[in-house]
Formats: sequence, structure tokens, C-alpha cells
Amino acid sequence: MTESTRIVLAARPVGAPTPANFRTETYRLPETAEGQVLLRTRYLSLDPYMRGRMSAAKSYAQPVAIGEVMVGQTVSEVLESRAAGYAKGDVVLAQSGWQTHQVTAAAGLRTLDPDIAPVSTALGVLGMPGFTAYSGLLKIGRPKAGETLVVAAATGPVGSVVGQLAKREGLEVVGIAGGPQKVAYLRELGFDAAIDHRAPDFAAQLAAAVPDGIDIYFENVGGAVAQAVYPLLNNFARVPVCGLIAHYNEEGSEGADRLPAFVGRILFRSLTIRGFIQSEFVEELRPRFLREMAGWVADGTVRYREDVVTGLANAPEAFIGLLSGRNFGKLIVRVD
Amino acid sequence: MTESTRIVLAARPVGAPTPANFRTETYRLPETAEGQVLLRTRYLSLDPYMRGRMSAAKSYAQPVAIGEVMVGQTVSEVLESRAAGYAKGDVVLAQSGWQTHQVTAAAGLRTLDPDIAPVSTALGVLGMPGFTAYSGLLKIGRPKAGETLVVAAATGPVGSVVGQLAKREGLEVVGIAGGPQKVAYLRELGFDAAIDHRAPDFAAQLAAAVPDGIDIYFENVGGAVAQAVYPLLNNFARVPVCGLIAHYNEEGSEGADRLPAFVGRILFRSLTIRGFIQSEFVEELRPRFLREMAGWVADGTVRYREDVVTGLANAPEAFIGLLSGRNFGKLIVRVD
Repeated sequence: MTESTRIVLAARPVGAPTPANFRTETYRLPETAEGQVLLRTRYLSLDPYMRGRMSAAKSYAQPVAIGEVMVGQTVSEVLESRAAGYAKGDVVLAQSGWQTHQVTAAAGLRTLDPDIAPVSTALGVLGMPGFTAYSGLLKIGRPKAGETLVVAAATGPVGSVVGQLAKREGLEVVGIAGGPQKVAYLRELGFDAAIDHRAPDFAAQLAAAVPDGIDIYFENVGGAVAQAVYPLLNNFARVPVCGLIAHYNEEGSEGADRLPAFVGRILFRSLTIRGFIQSEFVEELRPRFLREMAGWVADGTVRYREDVVTGLANAPEAFIGLLSGRNFGKLIVRVD
Repeated sequence: MTESTRIVLAARPVGAPTPANFRTETYRLPETAEGQVLLRTRYLSLDPYMRGRMSAAKSYAQPVAIGEVMVGQTVSEVLESRAAGYAKGDVVLAQSGWQTHQVTAAAGLRTLDPDIAPVSTALGVLGMPGFTAYSGLLKIGRPKAGETLVVAAATGPVGSVVGQLAKREGLEVVGIAGGPQKVAYLRELGFDAAIDHRAPDFAAQLAAAVPDGIDIYFENVGGAVAQAVYPLLNNFARVPVCGLIAHYNEEGSEGADRLPAFVGRILFRSLTIRGFIQSEFVEELRPRFLREMAGWVADGTVRYREDVVTGLANAPEAFIGLLSGRNFGKLIVRVD
């Protein structure tokens, strides 16, 4: 194996990304040096944060440069190892990005045990999205039995775990999703109510579903959903903010300035709005998360759903669809 | 004593209040019944929150009804008591509102000890504003030595205590105030930097004063000051929100929608924005606050400044001035 196929950022998107923003290339792999491994990508994770990396503006991470391979977490197989502790055939969690192969330093890789759970779950329920749900809910949401939690993008890898964990903690859980199929799935997962944000009377349905108001809004969407949620927040409500997918394709804003009313509500309702990236809590919580979540996945307490697309060439279309909610479950590209 | 003079809400203000929103009346006091006291107001506190009570919109408290006496905390003298534990001549902290006398239930009054500090301080540094500063800084700001704190309305009763307590905790403290006299006073109080928000290059001055960014922004103002502060917030910054005086006279909003950018910043910088009313922390913290702050006031660690207006008839003008920053220190009406 001497070549890798990769998808690079060809141009920065204006608004929603298009296939023209991506370019597929083949390049010759370097020799595997001491301390390095040669990886073959099995699964590539596609996640909303990647939209941010495509823009020039710095957010919490550096943007991808034009011509550079698109970033992304992968589940990869070791084809060749010149690093202690890694052997041919090992399956590891890596950051290879959108490419079929990579030669990389072994430091920072994490070996996956396929006996614990299917290895693809390291990109979802047992990975970054699952941990985002777990740490944000426990550390910022601080759920108390009897409270009401609302989560949007609720069939996604973060939202579905938030809702299921909140049910486990004894909360009333309302999930928001797009379309009847997703709404039906939320009921299957045991959510107390599931609401379609595409319904013309969405805001009224939401209000009716939370007669006691909302104590925790797990914010991963923003936009019209958030606008319907905020007026329903109770005193002392907590709003962990881990994503704002509705805004990622926006190029500026229009209409009335909603900021003063927003901050006024924070004041008058003693709200806590707390942005976070799961990495903040890794040291404190990840070992416990991995132990607990692996148990819950094994015994069926926490269910998960993967939306698997085959072939690296289909990654751009799948990612474009992710930003408009076309995926149903954790979006993963099977690369091999 | 059988009559009281009171100032009632004559009409709800549209924008900034005017004298026409208030009306002075004289009324006949009822007999003092069992469990009640007759109070004479010595000092009436004027505070920004009263603007909210003049509007019909419910915030964290019910609005004052048209024709009802304006609310307000008072330091009052007991003229007559039919309640156990209260005697003629006692000085108490009461909620008599904008009036010279009141017959009221003794339950809920707090007797003040003039030997601890001048009784007017129960409306300021040792009262609700001081406790707002103390609890919001400690519980939400969570100051750590070496961090940078910015506070606006910094010569006011909340801001001046926030800044002085933060200095005590070893923080770099930047105060914002309006006009050279207030700025000079902040330097006297030991603030590391003091900035006039009326300066044309205010935002640039602020940025220069916080080379390491801002870790705590104690928000009691909003408006243009907040807009200059937010871009300077560091990762994991905390923003206790106890007031938004710049917006209290607003009737809606105009211009571009700043909400998406605001929430985006919360996300990308892992910010904590936390509204609060000091009452939340009373049970947990007030005894400690009263003990510590009385000591600090007595030994000069914490200095305070009162802006005393004489005569209840001058309360409306003084209050109107408060909303545009004309006061210099804790605004109090000496009623007797």
C-alpha cells in the first residue's frame, strides 16, 4: 500500500457547502518512520463541527487550510507498525481525517477493544458525541428527578444519549426532531414526548408538552427551535450549549436584534447559559463515562442508531445532508 | 401622626420615566393593629430594578399597579409598636416604599444596630447591593488570584463592592464609569485601571487595559459597554448578570440581530452567562456576608460612597437621574 485517497478543502463555502468545496486527490504515502504507524481508515466520523473548520474564522479550533485534508475522527486499522504497543491488525481511534490511509505518529492513538462494543461506536455513543451528551448533561445540566428536559436534534448521537440518560435520571424528557420517522423513533427510545419541528404549530405543541416549563434545554441547534424554547425556560434553568447547527451556514444576520431580550431573560429567570466542548471534562469524567456507557450499551439501557454511508467519495454529500438534518442517527462513512 | 405622604405610579413610562409618571398623595394612616408597627421613613433606597416594576411586563417580580405606591426598601424608625420585639425608637429595615410613614406587619422587618455601621448602609454596602456584589462575585464569578475582572457602573453600590472584593482576592480589576470624577474615584479605591465609557475610544482603551483578556465580567449594565467587553472574554470566562440598566428604558430593539453571534461566542469560548437575583443566595451566604462586610467597612478595607438626596418630593427626579448615571454612589433619599 503506497497511495492514499483524500478529500481536501478546495474552497471555503459561502452559506451551505456544495460539492465544489471539496476535491479528491491521490497522494503517495511516506515511509513509516520509527514511532509511526500506517493506518487504513475503516470508519470516518462526520460531525457538525466540521462546518466551522471549513470557514476562515477561528472558533475553538484552527480552520482547515485550503488544499488541506478535511479533519475528522476515524476508526482505523493498523497495517504496519513501527511503534511500541501497536501491532498489525490493531483497531485504533485516530484523527486521520477524510482519507483512506495515513502514516502518523502512534502517540495519541487509542486502541479499541471490539469485544466491548462494535468499534464504530467509538465515533458515536461511546465517543465524542456520547461524551458530549454525558458530560454536558451531568456537569452543566445538573438533572434532578422530576424536572423537564428538552433536547433538539434528538435522534442524533448527542441528543439521543442526552434524552436516554435524562430518562435514567428520572426526568420528563421531550425530544425535538424533523419528520415523522424520527419522531416515532424518539417514542421508541422512551422519550415522554416527541415533537416535529417542521410542524406549522411546532411552538404551540412544544408549549403544550411542557406544562411545568423547561428546566434543562440541551442546546445543540439554535435557530427557530431555540426561539421556541427560550420563553418556556423556568427560573434557574440550565442551558448547556454544545452546538448551534442551525447557524453554521449563516452569513451574518437579519431582522430585529434579539440580544437584549435574550440577556434580559437570562437575568429575569436566573438562567445559566454555559458553552462547553467535551474536552473540558475528559480528564475528570471520561474513564467513568467509558465504563458506564459501555455497560448501558451492552445491557440495552442506552440504544444508539448509526447512519452509515459507504465509500469516501460519498462523504461530501453526506456531510452536506448532515447540516440540513438528512441523516438519521450517527453519521459515519464506511471507508473500506 | 395620622397622615402619610406617598408617591404612587401615575402612569407607565414609555422609554425614560418623566415626572408625569409619578403622583404625590397624602392619605390617612390606619390604626396600628395587633402585630403591627407604625414606621416613619428615614431613608428610602432608589435602585435601578424599580424601573422594571414601573412596566407592565412581569420580570422577576410583579409590576407596581397604577395608583399604587412605588416599591422600595427603607430604613425606618418605629414610632409605635403593637408587636413583640419592637419598641418605639427602634430602627428597622423595611419595605415601606416611597412614602413618609407606613403601618405594617412587624414580621419581615429587620432591626438595625447603629453601632455596627451607619444605618443607611443597610441600603447599600451592607444591604441588597452589597450582597448582590458579594454573592454574585463569589458564587458565580468564582474569582481566582491573577485573573482579570471588569465591572461597569463601577462607582455604584454594586460595582464598587465587586471591584474592592476582587482586589482583596488578588485579581486585576478594571472599572468602567462615566466621567472623569468617577474614574478618579475608582483609582482612589485601588482599581488597577479605570475607564470612562464616554471616551470616543472607549473600546480601544478597554482592550488595552486587559492585555490578558477578561475572566470575569460582572454584568450590571449591558448596552455599548457589554458590546465592548464580550469580544475580550477569555475561554471559561464567567459573566454574573445582575442588571442591565442600559436597556431598562428601551422599547424594543433595532439594527442587526446580535443574538447568533452572542450565543456563538458562548459556545466557542465555553462561557458561563448566569443571571441571578441576590435573594437566591440569602440563606446560604447572608450571615457570613453581614459579618465579613461589617468588619471590612469598619476597618476601611471596603469603602463606600452615598449620594444622598433630601426630601421625598425629590425622589422622582433622583430616580430619573439614576437611570442615566447621574448619581455618584449609592442613591438614597433622606425622607425626614
